[in-house]
Amino acid sequence: MPLVVAPMGGGPSTPGLVGAVAQAGALGSLANGYLAPGDGRDAIRAVRALTGEPFAVNLFVPTTVAPEPAHIERTAGLLGRYYRELGMGEVPVIERHSEDFDEQLAVVVEERVPVVSFTFGIPRPDQMGLLRDTGAFIIGTATSAEEAAALEAAGADAVCAQGAEAGGHRGSFTPEADAARIGLATLLPQVRDAVRVPVIAAGGIMDGRGICAALALGADAAQLGTAFLRCPEAGTNNAHRHALRAASDVSTTLTRAFSGKSARAIRNRYVEEMSAYDVAPYPVTNALTGPLRKQAARVGSADHLSLWAGQGVALGRELPAGDLVRTLERETVESLERLCRLCR
Amino acid sequence: MPLVVAPMGGGPSTPGLVGAVAQAGALGSLANGYLAPGDGRDAIRAVRALTGEPFAVNLFVPTTVAPEPAHIERTAGLLGRYYRELGMGEVPVIERHSEDFDEQLAVVVEERVPVVSFTFGIPRPDQMGLLRDTGAFIIGTATSAEEAAALEAAGADAVCAQGAEAGGHRGSFTPEADAARIGLATLLPQVRDAVRVPVIAAGGIMDGRGICAALALGADAAQLGTAFLRCPEAGTNNAHRHALRAASDVSTTLTRAFSGKSARAIRNRYVEEMSAYDVAPYPVTNALTGPLRKQAARVGSADHLSLWAGQGVALGRELPAGDLVRTLERETVESLERLCRLCR
Repeated sequence: MPLVVAPMGGGPSTPGLVGAVAQAGALGSLANGYLAPGDGRDAIRAVRALTGEPFAVNLFVPTTVAPEPAHIERTAGLLGRYYRELGMGEVPVIERHSEDFDEQLAVVVEERVPVVSFTFGIPRPDQMGLLRDTGAFIIGTATSAEEAAALEAAGADAVCAQGAEAGGHRGSFTPEADAARIGLATLLPQVRDAVRVPVIAAGGIMDGRGICAALALGADAAQLGTAFLRCPEAGTNNAHRHALRAASDVSTTLTRAFSGKSARAIRNRYVEEMSAYDVAPYPVTNALTGPLRKQAARVGSADHLSLWAGQGVALGRELPAGDLVRTLERETVESLERLCRLCR
Repeated sequence: MPLVVAPMGGGPSTPGLVGAVAQAGALGSLANGYLAPGDGRDAIRAVRALTGEPFAVNLFVPTTVAPEPAHIERTAGLLGRYYRELGMGEVPVIERHSEDFDEQLAVVVEERVPVVSFTFGIPRPDQMGLLRDTGAFIIGTATSAEEAAALEAAGADAVCAQGAEAGGHRGSFTPEADAARIGLATLLPQVRDAVRVPVIAAGGIMDGRGICAALALGADAAQLGTAFLRCPEAGTNNAHRHALRAASDVSTTLTRAFSGKSARAIRNRYVEEMSAYDVAPYPVTNALTGPLRKQAARVGSADHLSLWAGQGVALGRELPAGDLVRTLERETVESLERLCRLCR
């Protein structure tokens, strides 16, 4: 059963998690989108010290939004209250809102990473060419059939179809797809019909039933993120772990409040209060809330954290990553066998 | 393969559609929620003239919201523009916002309808008792695990788990479940784990792949609505049919603008303009927009219609209902067989 462990930025996707799932036969993903190029390189080498098996590195395709100064100021003004609550003083003026994508890409090329996945868009042809020359297997992320077709046309070797159930950021790069919030069970067959490359199903999948359903809907593989957040190898902070354990099926919501891009998190005070406002677009708000979220993790304040989680969070388990991979494989076979019996 | 054709109020679920799918071996549903008791009785008898097979009748459990006069007036004020556009004069003052539920229920009891499904809540114990005494099989609609458990506890014989992908109204009766908008692939296993009664999967299912996936996720049956909207037997009006044919995976949205309750429709001018406003709660806004929607259907104005559709709308087909039932059965078996081969 082809299983991908999703890239989970901001801590959870440690080299330890990626290495452990690789050793168990799944494809782990480093979430290098937020990392400085040197830190990304260190993470790649740390995985290689743990396993000789293949693994993926995920990067964020930059969005070219010219941040409007007044909008940045308004957003910073809204955040002042939370900075003060955590004893952090003034909201800092941020000069650079994201890492340099070409430098991040150069690291992946130099390190000859076997699988490279992208979120938030399609790299330029010259960028795709650099990767292609290393022999990397390239995965793009789509939230609509149109996005999937565009990724295939740009040369992606596989498309990750991400349903609206998914935790963390939506990979959308067209406003229509972002707004449509297509559920996985409906998205998958439409993406399957739109492309010829392999399709990886993502969004709310937590167990073998979900993986089996993804296969029924035409997927070639399943990608799980939230399911691995509570593994001891994940870098998930303690307040986040606590919230994951306590969550139910109605606990999450999509919000732009943390980064300026739609992302799914467990509702907390920050989300409830901030979702009413139109914050500056990604990556501006992401950069502005970065120090706040780091401090919140440090002091264990669930009120201020981005408690990323998919809609299946309540089905989560606390198992070592390798055991979880093996459990998911066993469950998938059981689900397939159960369906086989219906067939006869 | 146990297949339910969803109740689709406001026209599509004709006795002809219900009779045709019953003859092909599926369970059709009359949507009697909006019908006066006498009209509901006529529809039931019309089905019985077409088939001796079982069928379902769906009713809306009343929500006890005391409509606030100022809110009603504000909503009527917003609607004036659309009434004028369709040459309808003033927005009428409506005395009675919905049909009498007990009278509707009495018809279903007197007619000894074999299967009765409910949306928007749980009937009172005495109402459940009346039905139980006729031997009816009772189906409740849930959009969260908690709602499913409450329905089972109240005596439902089966629970319809409705994912956020579904067209038309969400069956939610707790604000948490309505807001959470849980996708079917994540909702189903959680509902399956929460109840012991059979679970019927609904929301965005359009073909055998979707039905097979629902079975994988623990469902005992699948309910399809949008898939049957374009059947010749359906009472779907022409402007609606045209919009269904033209829709893509990103065409629909959830909106309260037509009725005061969340429902999924193809975006049109009315939805784009009205979704910004806080309209009066169901059933007030539903009653206020009723004449508008009827007139829009008459003159073929897609701008003013509630173009109900699920997120899978683009997978829709134009087939006689019986042929569609048989096609879905064949496709489901094909999907099961394909999975069986993965198993070996």
